[in-house]
Order: sequence, then structure tokens, then C-alpha cells
Amino acid sequence: MPNAADRRFMRLAIALGRRGLGQVWPNPAVGCVIVRDGRILARGWTQPGGRPHAEAMALAACDARGATAYVSLEPCAHHGRTPPCSDALIGAGVIRVVTALTDPDPRVSGRGHARLRAAGLEVHEGVEASAARDANAGFLLRLEAGRPWLTLKLALTLDGRIATAGGESRWITGPEARRAVHALRARHDAVLVGAGTARADDPDLRVRDLGIARQPVRVVASRKMDLDPNGQLGRTARANPVWMLYGDAQDVPEGWTQTGARLIGCPEQDGTLEPRAMMATLAREGLTRVLCEGGGALGAGLIGAGLVDELVIFGAGKLIGADGRAGLGPLGLDRLADAPKFALCRVQPAGDDICQIWRRR
Amino acid sequence: MPNAADRRFMRLAIALGRRGLGQVWPNPAVGCVIVRDGRILARGWTQPGGRPHAEAMALAACDARGATAYVSLEPCAHHGRTPPCSDALIGAGVIRVVTALTDPDPRVSGRGHARLRAAGLEVHEGVEASAARDANAGFLLRLEAGRPWLTLKLALTLDGRIATAGGESRWITGPEARRAVHALRARHDAVLVGAGTARADDPDLRVRDLGIARQPVRVVASRKMDLDPNGQLGRTARANPVWMLYGDAQDVPEGWTQTGARLIGCPEQDGTLEPRAMMATLAREGLTRVLCEGGGALGAGLIGAGLVDELVIFGAGKLIGADGRAGLGPLGLDRLADAPKFALCRVQPAGDDICQIWRRR
Repeated sequence: MPNAADRRFMRLAIALGRRGLGQVWPNPAVGCVIVRDGRILARGWTQPGGRPHAEAMALAACDARGATAYVSLEPCAHHGRTPPCSDALIGAGVIRVVTALTDPDPRVSGRGHARLRAAGLEVHEGVEASAARDANAGFLLRLEAGRPWLTLKLALTLDGRIATAGGESRWITGPEARRAVHALRARHDAVLVGAGTARADDPDLRVRDLGIARQPVRVVASRKMDLDPNGQLGRTARANPVWMLYGDAQDVPEGWTQTGARLIGCPEQDGTLEPRAMMATLAREGLTRVLCEGGGALGAGLIGAGLVDELVIFGAGKLIGADGRAGLGPLGLDRLADAPKFALCRVQPAGDDICQIWRRR
Repeated sequence: MPNAADRRFMRLAIALGRRGLGQVWPNPAVGCVIVRDGRILARGWTQPGGRPHAEAMALAACDARGATAYVSLEPCAHHGRTPPCSDALIGAGVIRVVTALTDPDPRVSGRGHARLRAAGLEVHEGVEASAARDANAGFLLRLEAGRPWLTLKLALTLDGRIATAGGESRWITGPEARRAVHALRARHDAVLVGAGTARADDPDLRVRDLGIARQPVRVVASRKMDLDPNGQLGRTARANPVWMLYGDAQDVPEGWTQTGARLIGCPEQDGTLEPRAMMATLAREGLTRVLCEGGGALGAGLIGAGLVDELVIFGAGKLIGADGRAGLGPLGLDRLADAPKFALCRVQPAGDDICQIWRRR
């Protein structure tokens, strides 16, 4: 039976796995701890790009004979670009494996555990399963629901505004909150904005100053692709990925075909890109975690379709008033009971601002 | 010289004084601790209605000969409805008095301290002065600036809305937050709403279930007094005070003169009650702490005039969207730099909601 120490080592493995979030898609962000006689011999986590896997990294750093391996996801059993981790654990002389989750990937799903057991190893599954599900919610959603985990970031005044009536929006929040947004981007596979925001702000959307190995994909939802290809996104699309989601009934403007951006057609509905189809497209392309940074119309479309899993709200201690621009577009609710509901996860200061994290209820 | 123990006893006196907030206007909410040989002999605080004073309450509960008295405000020196507290301290045999603030009331201002010193007592002033100023900010603002401390309460969705497009607003926040609003009312001398809110909600505005000695005054800002005198406020105006602020260019409707409500004329400006004049009127009537509970237009008028000292925002984990009703009316800002700014004081959960307290920066 798994004991308190097993749970503690597994929580460490899960925390290590989280280091890969945003860096390992379409792979899961797995962590591994190898322990013998209560002492940690090695730690590993999925590396940027998705390999080496956590187990391979940890096994490479120790002599694991007679040890227990804690892995936050079932070790793989198929020969992909690396030999299967279940074989590697067996070959390294590990005698006991503790895992948190069965891999829902049909190429693995139970086969990794079976292989370990067939080789005579003691296997315990499901230890700290809910924490592991939480850490890999994007990977699991993609496989189980065909869509990525979606975080919606809003930077608002206390009365829910993002700009004055005249459109002045720089800056609502302070430098600490803006820096926290870069850290948030780094933990997502992609950053998504609507065409209006891209036109108004001409953003770069890359992570700055955090030394990450892999920039998030910059995704623009622009049904008509009516966006200047010579803006920041178009100009930097060869250096770091830019994906343009456009309406599949539209013509592709020539300027964009030259930029190096990927142009991906999506179904339209009522004169806009259909939100569920858009998310399904991004999942098919391998994305497991997407951060939407607005604007208000795109955010409202995603909220209205029930696709937003997490809200990250940076609240600035300012008031703009009802003549300012709203941070979230119209939702067309008839009844208050229909308002999308969220549960508070965490609240923390960010300089002079406050950061609230809410999850879908 | 005051030492660490002096500061600790003074903080206790200030905390005791806070018990009177909302109950003692137009008097200050003072606390008193009497200590001998490091042991607390008695504690006192200003009683509901403003008397007995804190010192009188504490002195009545002990033999204070040879003791030190910690008082959060200079003891009074004038014969009002009670004999002066400075004389009472002298008469009780107190040998040392530590205070936090000089009373700005011109009838006292320094005379209390002088009287104690003249009688041979050791007096230390200014201990924990800023905490004491904070606790009595309303009393001090009234005397020094001719206006009450003004708290604006907003109960908002995460996107700053108070109702759906159709006007459905019950309830944005949950029962714990609504209960916290009653505690907030109890700590203010008066609750202020605009005529639109009074018409739409027909509120009672009294504190329920907290066993308080003195209900806050219910103040309605209604330039034209176009409010049904048979509503909850009119019907209960004899049981607990209701003050109607109306435009002094308007005729007073007969229905209201029969209710028992006080009708107070205020200067108009641009078709609305002038916010500064309104606050000056309330201060002249003795109010030191006013809680505005909306609506959006009144809140925006007070914010725009720079009169709001504290924002208490109950945030519900819901989204309504831009077609919902805004919690704060238009402010007519040209530049983002002109947006009123607030500093975060405290944030705490209130059931499923979150309560943020921000103070004017």
C-alpha cells in the first residue's frame, strides 16, 4: 500500500513535472523522482520540446538498482522517438514504481503499467491522482475532450474597464503585473488574441526576460485576416511561430502568405470564427494549454461557449467609469442564473495590483 | 519616554475605541486602558450615543490610584453633558497619561493635556498616532475638512457588472457577502443611496441580526424626492432615522413631510445634487462615517468629486458581459492618468465571493 512518504515523493514528482508546462506540448509535463531507502537519488522532468522524458532524465543521473521510481504519469510503452520509459525503468533495475495517472493516450493506456508488472516490478497506481490531473489538465483535456485548457487573462480596473472612452489603455496595470503576464505566457503552449487587439496594440506577445527554451505559439483569431502583415507578428513569424486562424470562407491575403506564419482555416458562424471549432483546431495542432489575452469580443465568445477553464484577473486600483471600454464583450444573458460561474483558486498581490485566479465551477 | 509596553497598551486602547465606530457620532470613538505595574486594571471605550466617554467607563471599573491611563485621544477639558475626563483622571489618582492624538475640537485642542500637566501628571502624547488617526479618520475629517469619511461599497461580477441587461440583480453576491455588508453598515454612522437605487430595490438599509445599539441613519440623495413615501424607507422613518437630501430648488412633495423623515435641502448643480455640498451637509449634521451603497450614478459623482476614501468591493465569481449594467456610472475621463487611484488595504474571502478593500491613494 502506498504510504505518506509515497504521497510526498509523488507530490514532488508532480511539482517537478509542472516545470515543463508550456514547453513540452503536445507531450504531457511529467515529473519523476527516484528514491532508495528514503533518500532521493535523482529527479527528472519532461524537457523542452517533450523529450527526454522525465524518467530518462532521472535514470541518467543515478544508479537506480533496487530503487523506487515516482512518476506523475504512467511510463510510456511504445517506441516513439525514444525507447519506452517502462523498458528503461526495468533495465535500470528499479524494483518498485509509483504512478499518479494512467496515460489516456491509446498507445500507452495501461500498457506501461502492464509491462512493468510483467517484468516483476511492484506497481502502485493512482497516488495523488487529482493533483496530477490538475497539473496535466491541458494534456488530458486535449486527449479526452479534443480541446486545450483555456486560460483567459483580463487586466482590468476595479470597475472592469480596459481603456478610457478615447482608447487609452497603457498601462492599466503596473510593471509587476505585466511581468507576471510574461510568466503566465511561459506556462502556456500558445498565446491567443483577437484581430481587434492585434490591430489596436500591434503586440509582440513573446515571453521576454525569462530565459525560456521555447516561445509560446502566437495565435491570432482573425476571420478576414485584416491585419497588417508588416506588424510585429508578421515581421517576427519566421523567428518564432505565429498561427493565423481565419475564416475558411475567406480569401487569404497575399501579404500574409509571405510572412512565415501558419495560416489555418476555421469554420465561421454568425460572422465570426466558431469558438469550439477554433479550440478543436488548436488541439488537433497539438496545443494543450492556451492563454487568451483578449480582446473583449473574443473573450466573450470563448466564455459564452463555455470554453474558459481559468480566469486570471489582474485588478488595478483604478476606476475609469462606465464610459470606458469594457474588458469583456456582451454575453447576451437573459437570466442571472445563466451567468458563467467561477470558484476562487488563489489571490495574490502583484505590485500595486491584485491577481485573482478563478476556475470554472 | 514611551516604551514598547506603552505602544502595546495604546494599540489595545485604539482597538477598543474602534468598537464605537458607527455608534458614537458626532463624537470620536475613543478607547482607554488603565494599567498599573504592567497589569491591566480596566478597559473602556466610548459608549453608543457618544457617552459615557472611554475614560469614564474605565475609571468606573477600577481603583486607578498610581496607575497609567492610555487614551487614544486627548481627554476632554470642557464641561459638556459630562464632567471633563481630564479632571476625572486627575481626581482618580492617575499619575501618568499616554495619548495618541491631540483632539482637533477647538473646545479641547491641547487644553486636556495642559490640564493634566498642570495637575502634576506625567503626560506622553503622539504614541501610535497614525493608527489612532486611522481609527478616527471620520471624526478627524469632519473637523479638519468639513466632510465625513466616505466608503463606497460595490457588489460586482468579475467584469464589473451589477445586473443583467434586463435588470436582474438578486443576487450577484452570496449570503456571506451580504451579511458582511450588514457588519459594514454597523461600523458607519449612515448608509447613503441614490434615488434610482431606492426606487429600483425599495431597500430597508437597516442592520439586521447584529444586535447593535444604534442603527445607521438612512440617507437618500433624491434631488426631486421622486420616491414613494409608502416604500420601506418612508414606512420605517419613525422607527429609525431617514434623511432625504433633496435639491433646494425643488418643491417638497407633501407625502414625505408626513413620514417622519428629515428633509434636508442641498445645492444642485447640472441637474444633480452637488456632491461636495452633500457631504458638507452630512458633516454639519454630525456624521463622521458614511457608507454609500450606490447606485452607479451617485457612486460615480462621489468618485469624480474625489470624495471616496475607501472602496469595499465584493467580487462574485460570475461574468455578465458588457451588455449587463455597470456598477459605476460614467466618469468622463479624458486621460488614463486622471483615473482615480486606490491602494490595496486588505483582501479576504466572503463565502464564494472575495472582498477587497482599497483606500484612496
